[in-house]
Amino acid sequence: MAGEIVALAGGIGAARFLEGLVTVAPPERVVIIGNTGDDLELHGLYICPDLDTVAYTLSGNVNPERGWGIAGDTFSCLEALSRLGAETWFGLGDRDLATHLFRTEMLRGGLPLSEATRRITEALGVRARLLPATDQRCRTRIQTDAGLLDFQVYFVQRKAEDRVLGIIFDGAEQARPAPGVLEAIHGASAVIVCPSNPLISIGPILAVPGVRRALGETRARVAAVSPIVGGRAIKGPADRMMRSLGLRPSAAQVAELYRDFIDVFVLDQVDEPEARGIEELGIKAVSTDTIMKDRQAKVSLALATLRALEP
Amino acid sequence: MAGEIVALAGGIGAARFLEGLVTVAPPERVVIIGNTGDDLELHGLYICPDLDTVAYTLSGNVNPERGWGIAGDTFSCLEALSRLGAETWFGLGDRDLATHLFRTEMLRGGLPLSEATRRITEALGVRARLLPATDQRCRTRIQTDAGLLDFQVYFVQRKAEDRVLGIIFDGAEQARPAPGVLEAIHGASAVIVCPSNPLISIGPILAVPGVRRALGETRARVAAVSPIVGGRAIKGPADRMMRSLGLRPSAAQVAELYRDFIDVFVLDQVDEPEARGIEELGIKAVSTDTIMKDRQAKVSLALATLRALEP
Repeated sequence: MAGEIVALAGGIGAARFLEGLVTVAPPERVVIIGNTGDDLELHGLYICPDLDTVAYTLSGNVNPERGWGIAGDTFSCLEALSRLGAETWFGLGDRDLATHLFRTEMLRGGLPLSEATRRITEALGVRARLLPATDQRCRTRIQTDAGLLDFQVYFVQRKAEDRVLGIIFDGAEQARPAPGVLEAIHGASAVIVCPSNPLISIGPILAVPGVRRALGETRARVAAVSPIVGGRAIKGPADRMMRSLGLRPSAAQVAELYRDFIDVFVLDQVDEPEARGIEELGIKAVSTDTIMKDRQAKVSLALATLRALEP
Repeated sequence: MAGEIVALAGGIGAARFLEGLVTVAPPERVVIIGNTGDDLELHGLYICPDLDTVAYTLSGNVNPERGWGIAGDTFSCLEALSRLGAETWFGLGDRDLATHLFRTEMLRGGLPLSEATRRITEALGVRARLLPATDQRCRTRIQTDAGLLDFQVYFVQRKAEDRVLGIIFDGAEQARPAPGVLEAIHGASAVIVCPSNPLISIGPILAVPGVRRALGETRARVAAVSPIVGGRAIKGPADRMMRSLGLRPSAAQVAELYRDFIDVFVLDQVDEPEARGIEELGIKAVSTDTIMKDRQAKVSLALATLRALEP
């Protein structure tokens, strides 16, 4: 397969998948469109959790146990902030802080997030190209019994325990795809939707006007990898969120959410019985082992996905 | 001596003196007017080196060897900033960063520096009252052969190696004394100018309109402690700066710089021969050991200064 492989990515699950992908494909040929819906401002810093998780993972810096943050990072600043009485519910390591300081300074200086991201990934040594879905502010907010919550308040501060009544992408109407996003999708040789939460990781990317349509129009084949295995999210609250929004927490349901633009759906072998229903939607269903328990499993999943994308 | 003791303070030398002062006088009765001329913005953070040195010292947090920063602090964030290609000539420890993040956030939220300083010192457990000389931006800039340099660029980045041709306090005309500054001077039972560089530590405080005049008008007796011993600065470039500006680097010269508002000048015993010249300016000269090599020396110097202030 020549040309660029474009991947839509959320955080941890996507980053693990991408680790495999850049092993089986030249990283220079991989363009990642990252979720910025869960960005937040805290302590005056502009923080992009999903972009950073991808960048830290692909540069070999990520904390392998947690899947986010930097391996071996310390939390001295956060502890000192706590003593000063500042909010410290969002984990910020000392080294991780440097990324946010560096990014915030660039944004204040007038650079767009896409350029700040380019400089950070370059400095970290990420060889794949990482694009934020948009340079504009487009924030995921979760409607709950406790009110409309900023995504990270819902997710980290309140531990995703509130019942989800709705999801909005605040600012989506005004957002434009970041430079290179539509071009990458249109010119891609293949597109992969990583195994991320369809509602809050991929949803904010699809909400940027023009992205979903470009995915439907591209001549490249588009595959999605299921983040739901055996009715449960591999990581995070996707299953509970889907259920409380009246959706089935199943691989087939995820395929259905993407049905207008995917050609291929990769699901776990335990969900093999769902393959037929997916095929009935006109989507090729490929089942394989999707649990990325180690490096080899990540590589196998990436390989299986690329193979499934072949015509 | 009842009532408040007001101290004008720069950084390290002042902080060491103040450590002694709050041992011999109740800290609640000490009001410190701190230098903000050497404040800087870096990495989007608002940094107040002199205020922080005083606050860290009086709260028992200061790094005792360096005299600035926090004891046992780590520099992981700074190292990570360096890898990202950011400027790292200004030492910022991980715990120290928390102070700057906390302060910057308060200032961005519209609080004046005096209120931000109050909250920081309160959280750190400083019992003396620390006031910035002004809430407005009034920055020391050094005219050198290499051009007009921001103070910290001259002092830290270029290691105070440029020849000093002049000093300006940028913004002084528009600055107003911070709330409480003039009131403290007018209502003081005694005023002490700490052993700080008269040009760049005390100078920026005196440049705030109204401060120098208040010092001349207050009914309290005013003492200054010499930062020059035997013709040399105890710390920093004061002697070289004085010389290159056509001043003598001597205790008597410092007394002369303050002659319009001080009643008492405390100089080191090695400078005893200069006492007579100082007395001829109408200033009471008291010589003692001014080298603050340990806690006891700090206490002795504070005691000697308070005694010298007695009528």
